[in-house]
Amino acid sequence: MPADRTPPSPEAGALFDLARTIAAKEIEPRVVEDEAQARFPREVVTTLGEAGLLALPYPERYGGGGQSYEVYLQVLEEIGYRSASLAVGVSVHSLSAYPLAEHGTEPQRDALLSWLLGGRTLGAYCLSEPHAGSDPAAMTTAARPDPSGAGWLLSGTKAWVTHGGIADFYTVFARTRADDRTGGVSCFLVDAGTPGLRIQPPERKMGLTASPTTQIVFDDAPVPAERLIGGEGDGLRIALSALDAGRLGIAAAAVGLAQRALDDAVAYAKQRHTFGRAIIDHQGLGFLLADMAAAVESARATMLAAARRRDAGLPASRQCSIAKLVATDAAMKVTEDAVQVFGGAGYTRDYPVERYMREAKVMQIFEGTNQIQRMVIARHLARP
Amino acid sequence: MPADRTPPSPEAGALFDLARTIAAKEIEPRVVEDEAQARFPREVVTTLGEAGLLALPYPERYGGGGQSYEVYLQVLEEIGYRSASLAVGVSVHSLSAYPLAEHGTEPQRDALLSWLLGGRTLGAYCLSEPHAGSDPAAMTTAARPDPSGAGWLLSGTKAWVTHGGIADFYTVFARTRADDRTGGVSCFLVDAGTPGLRIQPPERKMGLTASPTTQIVFDDAPVPAERLIGGEGDGLRIALSALDAGRLGIAAAAVGLAQRALDDAVAYAKQRHTFGRAIIDHQGLGFLLADMAAAVESARATMLAAARRRDAGLPASRQCSIAKLVATDAAMKVTEDAVQVFGGAGYTRDYPVERYMREAKVMQIFEGTNQIQRMVIARHLARP
Amino acid sequence: MPADRTPPSPEAGALFDLARTIAAKEIEPRVVEDEAQARFPREVVTTLGEAGLLALPYPERYGGGGQSYEVYLQVLEEIGYRSASLAVGVSVHSLSAYPLAEHGTEPQRDALLSWLLGGRTLGAYCLSEPHAGSDPAAMTTAARPDPSGAGWLLSGTKAWVTHGGIADFYTVFARTRADDRTGGVSCFLVDAGTPGLRIQPPERKMGLTASPTTQIVFDDAPVPAERLIGGEGDGLRIALSALDAGRLGIAAAAVGLAQRALDDAVAYAKQRHTFGRAIIDHQGLGFLLADMAAAVESARATMLAAARRRDAGLPASRQCSIAKLVATDAAMKVTEDAVQVFGGAGYTRDYPVERYMREAKVMQIFEGTNQIQRMVIARHLARP
Amino acid sequence: MPADRTPPSPEAGALFDLARTIAAKEIEPRVVEDEAQARFPREVVTTLGEAGLLALPYPERYGGGGQSYEVYLQVLEEIGYRSASLAVGVSVHSLSAYPLAEHGTEPQRDALLSWLLGGRTLGAYCLSEPHAGSDPAAMTTAARPDPSGAGWLLSGTKAWVTHGGIADFYTVFARTRADDRTGGVSCFLVDAGTPGLRIQPPERKMGLTASPTTQIVFDDAPVPAERLIGGEGDGLRIALSALDAGRLGIAAAAVGLAQRALDDAVAYAKQRHTFGRAIIDHQGLGFLLADMAAAVESARATMLAAARRRDAGLPASRQCSIAKLVATDAAMKVTEDAVQVFGGAGYTRDYPVERYMREAKVMQIFEGTNQIQRMVIARHLARP
Repeated sequence: MPADRTPPSPEAGALFDLARTIAAKEIEPRVVEDEAQARFPREVVTTLGEAGLLALPYPERYGGGGQSYEVYLQVLEEIGYRSASLAVGVSVHSLSAYPLAEHGTEPQRDALLSWLLGGRTLGAYCLSEPHAGSDPAAMTTAARPDPSGAGWLLSGTKAWVTHGGIADFYTVFARTRADDRTGGVSCFLVDAGTPGLRIQPPERKMGLTASPTTQIVFDDAPVPAERLIGGEGDGLRIALSALDAGRLGIAAAAVGLAQRALDDAVAYAKQRHTFGRAIIDHQGLGFLLADMAAAVESARATMLAAARRRDAGLPASRQCSIAKLVATDAAMKVTEDAVQVFGGAGYTRDYPVERYMREAKVMQIFEGTNQIQRMVIARHLARP
Repeated sequence: MPADRTPPSPEAGALFDLARTIAAKEIEPRVVEDEAQARFPREVVTTLGEAGLLALPYPERYGGGGQSYEVYLQVLEEIGYRSASLAVGVSVHSLSAYPLAEHGTEPQRDALLSWLLGGRTLGAYCLSEPHAGSDPAAMTTAARPDPSGAGWLLSGTKAWVTHGGIADFYTVFARTRADDRTGGVSCFLVDAGTPGLRIQPPERKMGLTASPTTQIVFDDAPVPAERLIGGEGDGLRIALSALDAGRLGIAAAAVGLAQRALDDAVAYAKQRHTFGRAIIDHQGLGFLLADMAAAVESARATMLAAARRRDAGLPASRQCSIAKLVATDAAMKVTEDAVQVFGGAGYTRDYPVERYMREAKVMQIFEGTNQIQRMVIARHLARP
Repeated sequence: MPADRTPPSPEAGALFDLARTIAAKEIEPRVVEDEAQARFPREVVTTLGEAGLLALPYPERYGGGGQSYEVYLQVLEEIGYRSASLAVGVSVHSLSAYPLAEHGTEPQRDALLSWLLGGRTLGAYCLSEPHAGSDPAAMTTAARPDPSGAGWLLSGTKAWVTHGGIADFYTVFARTRADDRTGGVSCFLVDAGTPGLRIQPPERKMGLTASPTTQIVFDDAPVPAERLIGGEGDGLRIALSALDAGRLGIAAAAVGLAQRALDDAVAYAKQRHTFGRAIIDHQGLGFLLADMAAAVESARATMLAAARRRDAGLPASRQCSIAKLVATDAAMKVTEDAVQVFGGAGYTRDYPVERYMREAKVMQIFEGTNQIQRMVIARHLARP
Repeated sequence: MPADRTPPSPEAGALFDLARTIAAKEIEPRVVEDEAQARFPREVVTTLGEAGLLALPYPERYGGGGQSYEVYLQVLEEIGYRSASLAVGVSVHSLSAYPLAEHGTEPQRDALLSWLLGGRTLGAYCLSEPHAGSDPAAMTTAARPDPSGAGWLLSGTKAWVTHGGIADFYTVFARTRADDRTGGVSCFLVDAGTPGLRIQPPERKMGLTASPTTQIVFDDAPVPAERLIGGEGDGLRIALSALDAGRLGIAAAAVGLAQRALDDAVAYAKQRHTFGRAIIDHQGLGFLLADMAAAVESARATMLAAARRRDAGLPASRQCSIAKLVATDAAMKVTEDAVQVFGGAGYTRDYPVERYMREAKVMQIFEGTNQIQRMVIARHLARP
């Protein structure tokens, strides 16, 4: 059954229906094979782009959807209901456009933003490094002025890049002043075809296998001056400003996945019989399903409450970290319990629940591990 | 620090401020003594009534506040932030007016509703019985036609009546047809002074001691015909229709209590030092506080999501049960952890956190135990 | 670091060391490849058999090890520390010999038991069926008297058979009286080469991939009369009597797996640095590891307490169900948290922790799901 | 029903029976009143002393019981099954004798130990201070040489002293060298009647009300030279050596309390009926009780595993901290759920379960909060 939503407007309701229909028609029939073959569904991204679902929270004048986060996240959920890889992909794409959209100059936005948001390109976000997963200040990738002209030369290695090798552009953070531990980082928008940009082999992940994750090595990769987003040294500030959006995106992917696992478990529990009745009618299992349903509703509500604060222009960082923490922990618990509901059958690839469980795990890890989220929340609480 | 709210309108924001101010000024100075002395703060109820905070979700024409549940529940939270007994009291009072407001005839409402909602009376709700806590169908309290006239004579014992002995009116459910197991129950509005209505000694409760809970014995207590609410035999249907509102009310009391426990714990953790720094800066404790904060935000969001569905006229019973379950489990966990943050000091009556923990426990029990909520949720999931 | 054990005797300590050494030398170097290739390490089973580790809890006169469950389970743990597939395999093998060893006649034992326990054969256990996973009374596999002689003809389908296709013998439960719902089941010891015994393709499992799990179809498969174990109709009683041993075996596999996940996580947390120090020295992560350690110690203690009761001849069924429940829930939690400790790296096949997590899940499911264990425990509590 | 025990010897079994019988006969009839009146049952302590149950883990030659911790802790459990205040009392008494018994000189032991262990006196343990609950190194109570002779003068304030005001002797830690932050602490055995020793009013605690907890002010209280236990400056080492024993004692009190809450809940769930059957037969509640039973068994097993390591002379500090953590968290969870099983009735003083819940909370706090236990465990894990 589709999730119970309370659309803030009829238009939003229609958008949810559209997303749900497209996801059911375009994604559902292929997701099992795509994940099994580790094949990214680039065509579906194109379809989503054409339907206007790739850049919902951005201004319409640049090709975005002009939607609130409250609406955008629920569309993301519907995509995540069918494919976690794609929901994460749309969130990452959206995140990769964030620095330009929010911190680019007017001329930069006019020149570039429609390219990012128009629905034909796919972005990637390069912040983490092999030894600086949770601590951007430890970054070593560097950009030095290109001796031959006005641009920059990027060198270093980025890690955990979703869409590595399939993206059309990369939003890259690099240190422009080696002597500055907390500042000195700048943000660049780099074309995929840039010389010296080398994609490494994809990580062999436990799940989300249709979505390639790679390291990217930059080897004196030239970046034109006009691709510096924000001022020199503004990088960490820009990265920090994008965190909330990125965390909400992952929360939405997690809620969609959890809702799916719940629905599959409920459907199975209605048709599977033991001891003479449907297992959903055994109270022990019924209570387990009730707790799963409570976790899903609660995760969605927490995420949307944070989104509404953000939409209202109120401070929302603490709430966004809470949303990411609550939603991804819920997804882990609910998917794990969904396998339990299926019993032995759930442990096999005959049903997708085992995949849901493998997919949920990464959500507790990326966009800031849930330990990092707790650090963020605790720091907010500790403020005078 | 006050809870971060996202008021749906400036008027709502003003109402939250008003509730917060009154609660801080009128309740805070006396709550410790009231609870220690098991003394119900009747004067505060009057103050709340005069401020228009006693009947918020009812139509203004009858003396109500004309507010949505989204708004009403957040006012209830602010009261619960200062006194769980009073938040429960306001919720119960509101619940006791529900049958008349929703199921009374126009003449009944014109005649009686302003009395209930005008802010000068306090109601009670008599549904449970000693042997029928969770199962209203097992009710044995009976109403038989008064042989001497057009009214009814009530006989039987009601249990767990909040405001027993201090209420001005009692909304009572009684069986009018003994031979009908699932139907045959009717709803009556009974004056406190009715002959044959006998208040039993208050229960000696673990917490919520300022709020009297009693059994009430009806011994051929006469009730006029015009005090039958809804049709004869409509009682269970009326009781069921009131469940959602009652559950949301308890959820709000629980969220307010949890927010208070969190705030007290954060304040203490900032000023208490061990091993050379404030304990909030020890990451182990910081993470505990972060989880508490996540539980509070999540409980509030879950409750308000259910309220908004209800306000929008969408089916919300599953969501209301989830809200009650999530919010009260959160309150239990958060208050228990708050005592932990205080350490030995928290275990003494020198600080109110031990009281919060005692108060939270009952919220997992009344208005349907959390096991009953899981039954309700599971039943919704099991529907075809 | 090896688990802290309290050996009940020096001999037991030596056996633990032997098991640890063999497991480290014979299993560790190949487990990653075996699991990746779904290749059962038959040679290692032979090695374990030659070392006398395959039939520890059985009498020495039949080739067993004459060890208590307290000792046997800790050896199983050491195997599970290196390979969950093998620990489960040894437990299942041991279980498959149980009916003959405990319920066979003296002549049957003399004739057959050394074959089962001598260390050169591998057994399998056929109780579950596709539609009777948790409810043996729903069994439909039937044995009818062979019209041509003194034996039986087996027909039906068994499911979730560990070692399906690689076992040398199958202990099979089948209905010998179709009209008897709770009785009428008998136990047979069936050779792998029996005509009419058809192995189905292996299940495509989420984990434990080196251990083949199949359905087995019996199609008028002839079984000699002397292969009936116990009396006709004793099957369910025999199956019930074996439950405790089987559950303890899975508990041991789970504890070994959990200890390994903990040790890997601790080792990683000591060498991985963020924010200027080893992550184990960040208190938030240190507390997570402490909770993991507590879960492992507690699971082992619970299992060994049940084993000691069993060894002492005291009733232990409730304790064995508790041990299975506690140990496998601990393994799930600990392995999941171990991935979290590794962060992104843990989500890849570069480290084995993601495999541990996939392996732990099935332990909550087989040998009676953890819901079934709760049913068993609740039933014991409900006894007059 | 009594806990299922596996006595290590028939003598131990007899001792368990004795403890159970005495506790049922002497404690059970008075515990409700003692707790309600905040009245310490001094007579029962005398009875326990006469029965030889007050000093079980100490050598018989000094009046102890010569029992292993495996046995002693299970006796303590039986006392805790009837009264948490008394179990804590026996544990604290035992702890207060620990420094003399383990670190006293032969002449000191000959002179004093029989007095402590003979069963007629009650001890107390003075380590914590108002601002140094978890951090003994922050201690400020000081002992300076008595200018008039060979002894010492103690000055300072000790906090959270169980048996404050009713003990016959106090084992007190005080700083003998003000300039030494981690050393410079010494241990003294102080008579209750010492001049300058002033008992403060008892703390108003949430539970364990029969057991007085006070601050104690020392105001140049003279202590003879021969009452210095161990060498000057050995205090912290002595305190550390006593930690394991103290933690196990609290674990035992917690397990006894949890077992009691479980048994009361099971008994109630068998006789209370809803929806036409005993509530224990509703699977949702049955599973809750099963999880409670699992927690109790698991807590006991964890505690006894630690005790056996200690009895075997193996390093056991990590295991003792785990036992304290696991057992007290279990007691909190189980007692809280026991109230839930009783529903509204459980929230009143008509049944003792609400008291159990109040008593459990302190066990997570004293003898090192459970956060401190996690610190200890994490530190052990972090060792090279």
